[in-house]
Amino acid sequence: MVTEQVLFMALINKETIERLKQKTNDLVNRTLDKHINLAVTGLSRSGKTAFITSFVNQLVNENSQSQLDFFSAIHQGRFIAAKRVPQKNLHIARFEYDKAMAAFSNEPPSWPEPTQGISELRLAIRYQPENSLLKYATDTVTLYVDITDYPGEWLLDLPLLDQTFEQWSEATTELLQQPLRAKQAQGFLTKVAELDPFEPVDEEKLASLSQEYTQLLLHYRHELGLSVIQPGRFILPGDLAGAPILQFFPFTEFAQINIDDYQSAGDDTLIGMLRARYLEYKERVVKAFYKQHFVNFDRQIILADCLTPLNAGQDSFNDLQQALNLIMKSFDYGKSDMLTRLFSPKIDKLLFAATKADHVTPEQHQHLMSLLDQLVHQTKHQLSFDEIKMSTQAIASVKATKAGQGKYQGKNIPVIQGKALADNKLVTLFPGAVPSTIPKASYWQEKSFNYLSFAPLETVSTHHTLPHLRMDQVFEFLLGDKMT
Amino acid sequence: MVTEQVLFMALINKETIERLKQKTNDLVNRTLDKHINLAVTGLSRSGKTAFITSFVNQLVNENSQSQLDFFSAIHQGRFIAAKRVPQKNLHIARFEYDKAMAAFSNEPPSWPEPTQGISELRLAIRYQPENSLLKYATDTVTLYVDITDYPGEWLLDLPLLDQTFEQWSEATTELLQQPLRAKQAQGFLTKVAELDPFEPVDEEKLASLSQEYTQLLLHYRHELGLSVIQPGRFILPGDLAGAPILQFFPFTEFAQINIDDYQSAGDDTLIGMLRARYLEYKERVVKAFYKQHFVNFDRQIILADCLTPLNAGQDSFNDLQQALNLIMKSFDYGKSDMLTRLFSPKIDKLLFAATKADHVTPEQHQHLMSLLDQLVHQTKHQLSFDEIKMSTQAIASVKATKAGQGKYQGKNIPVIQGKALADNKLVTLFPGAVPSTIPKASYWQEKSFNYLSFAPLETVSTHHTLPHLRMDQVFEFLLGDKMT
Repeated sequence: MVTEQVLFMALINKETIERLKQKTNDLVNRTLDKHINLAVTGLSRSGKTAFITSFVNQLVNENSQSQLDFFSAIHQGRFIAAKRVPQKNLHIARFEYDKAMAAFSNEPPSWPEPTQGISELRLAIRYQPENSLLKYATDTVTLYVDITDYPGEWLLDLPLLDQTFEQWSEATTELLQQPLRAKQAQGFLTKVAELDPFEPVDEEKLASLSQEYTQLLLHYRHELGLSVIQPGRFILPGDLAGAPILQFFPFTEFAQINIDDYQSAGDDTLIGMLRARYLEYKERVVKAFYKQHFVNFDRQIILADCLTPLNAGQDSFNDLQQALNLIMKSFDYGKSDMLTRLFSPKIDKLLFAATKADHVTPEQHQHLMSLLDQLVHQTKHQLSFDEIKMSTQAIASVKATKAGQGKYQGKNIPVIQGKALADNKLVTLFPGAVPSTIPKASYWQEKSFNYLSFAPLETVSTHHTLPHLRMDQVFEFLLGDKMT
Repeated sequence: MVTEQVLFMALINKETIERLKQKTNDLVNRTLDKHINLAVTGLSRSGKTAFITSFVNQLVNENSQSQLDFFSAIHQGRFIAAKRVPQKNLHIARFEYDKAMAAFSNEPPSWPEPTQGISELRLAIRYQPENSLLKYATDTVTLYVDITDYPGEWLLDLPLLDQTFEQWSEATTELLQQPLRAKQAQGFLTKVAELDPFEPVDEEKLASLSQEYTQLLLHYRHELGLSVIQPGRFILPGDLAGAPILQFFPFTEFAQINIDDYQSAGDDTLIGMLRARYLEYKERVVKAFYKQHFVNFDRQIILADCLTPLNAGQDSFNDLQQALNLIMKSFDYGKSDMLTRLFSPKIDKLLFAATKADHVTPEQHQHLMSLLDQLVHQTKHQLSFDEIKMSTQAIASVKATKAGQGKYQGKNIPVIQGKALADNKLVTLFPGAVPSTIPKASYWQEKSFNYLSFAPLETVSTHHTLPHLRMDQVFEFLLGDKMT
């Protein structure tokens, strides 16, 4: 009788203790669980979809064959597992990871379709903390990573907040007159020059010229691969398609008009309505992005393809440089107080990644990184003294080539081998040397660089890891300090 | 000297007086200027774009040849002119009036493309008030009419606010099992029946089944022309495309599961996530429409095509009836307090218009109106005692036929003549009698009604008025009392 009761008590105690232990664990876990809002964006053709897909793929399929040695949580054996979990914001599109992986697992594999607008994906990463105090309190911690994928153009719109319609018009007029853009812009510029800015507004005429300006932006973005596209929402209007807020354009003849007349022009004149819509765009589109999204980001990675502009020539390269400079303004909130005043953003780490590093030979990677470093140099110098920690990296989200040695005039030279995107045929080549600093005029005359676009090399099934270059260093920089 | 000074004084005085008079006029005008927010929506294939185009066309081109005798402002010679002016909300798409008029002015003319989502257009109508007191104070008054064009499905979503996920699922399951819908729904119903609702959610599976449910809705709407489509945003997602908030579906097996299990199921189970997304949809989509748009409307016209369902048979007709009943809930805010509590809407006049009246012979118009009247009867009866004044009308926004007399077995019968939409050939026919009450089962067996779709009959240049039926009565009901 006594024995039975003791046994019963023992059972209860064991259960109670287990339950209490579990509760404590849950509680501690919940307190310790960490969270990062990671923003991913990119300039024209930088391979953003491939990057996010590889980011998720490397973590959810992590195993003994993974090549993530520079990611200390993995190197130290503290990484347990990662999985996709339902995202936070139900009204934002899901990042279609499975669809993108399907492209890589096809026979033959292909690059995934680019994403449109904004999308989200949430990862839960289980790991053991290295901190010994925590180690005793709990077994594992979960880091939740909310990945937000958004168009790079949205960052390029920030400078508009500091510009009047007149200033923006003048800056854009200058841009439209640059060699790369001028030819295509001629018809538009002529039509705007013929306008009487003070005539009563004709909404149809305004809509049709806005449409023409939008077509120019689409041409620059998709045919010429340029990155400086303003206003960014014009090329990806979403629900604003057909709305007056996207029906304005730069007035290119400010030099010809009296500025007092301009100041006093009413909203019912052509120029007055252009100005009114520009102001509304800043308010409803630009500010809305910063208020609804940007303020929530903890970390940001910006992807840039430096190779295509190197191929395309000096003007394209200048466009890339200008785009990076404009983008840096969104992170310069230590210096300029516009952002802080308006939105209090909290990004503390910023990574610039030169993508497609596998498209040049390995000894050029350092150059590629230096080049990107130079491109963002001026503001980076200031940023390093402020609150944002910044870094530059040369990566391949999904490696599409193999590196080797070739013979040229009897000497060994480094080469890469991959399937040309154009015809899917295997080619071996040395694309040339990447300049490690911003190239001088003479560089562009030589045209010694000739990079080729590659298709994915091998089919990778959905449960295997994609080949990559330096994704582990990306993880270490963006997640490492949160997984200690 | 004295004379000059007097002259000078007189000049000053005249100027001053003129200026003062102008100021007074402006002030009085501004005070007197009136404003109506007019909402236009319609059920499947009701010709909403043609209606709005004709509405604007009749007013902006009003002249001595206009046929708007029942519009008292015109009948009494007080209507001066109307013109389009820039709309109020810059972030809402412009209603493309010019594009729609271009379709009517083509050779041969065609129906304009249907609009997508929400759009706006503002009219300024100058008129002389009939009130003698006002007549002395000012010459003219302007009535501003903001026309908002939005999808009828958005009104059909209102009842969701009163339904739990369980209730909505049960109602929708019943709907999917009705004869018209059942055949197409079979595959979807089978897949849902095979689900384990308490298993951990697989977002991909959920996305794919939601896609299948959306395809069903699109089929019902576009192939079968049905009107009861819930959730309405699924078929016109806009910026929400791909977002989890549009990735749920009715769970059709509530009879098979334990309701306590359902109540306690977490958001990480399949059924829990369906419920969570349904709730978020109500919050972010349904409520948002009422808060952002509906509360601002003063007057509403709802267009319905009763002829196509009469052609298609009893089930289609029942669908129309059900859609109208669901829609009435949005205007029943005298009785039910859900709307008032949440949004305080202020619509005081509601017009139901049976469109395409020109597609039947003139002596049938009265029947068509009675039929629509019966369809909305129950709630109309209550509404007439409440704050909303309601009316029913049979109209043709753009008349596509001519009425005349034909011979049938030696007797004169009424006929209409028009160009068949299918082949553009001129046909003369008697489509049959429109039942003046909701038809009984026997009516459907006879199949005595055979209505044909017509193309616009004659090209109308953009500065002329479109032929119509009873648009003047529409104006009188919706605008007349504001133009006294």
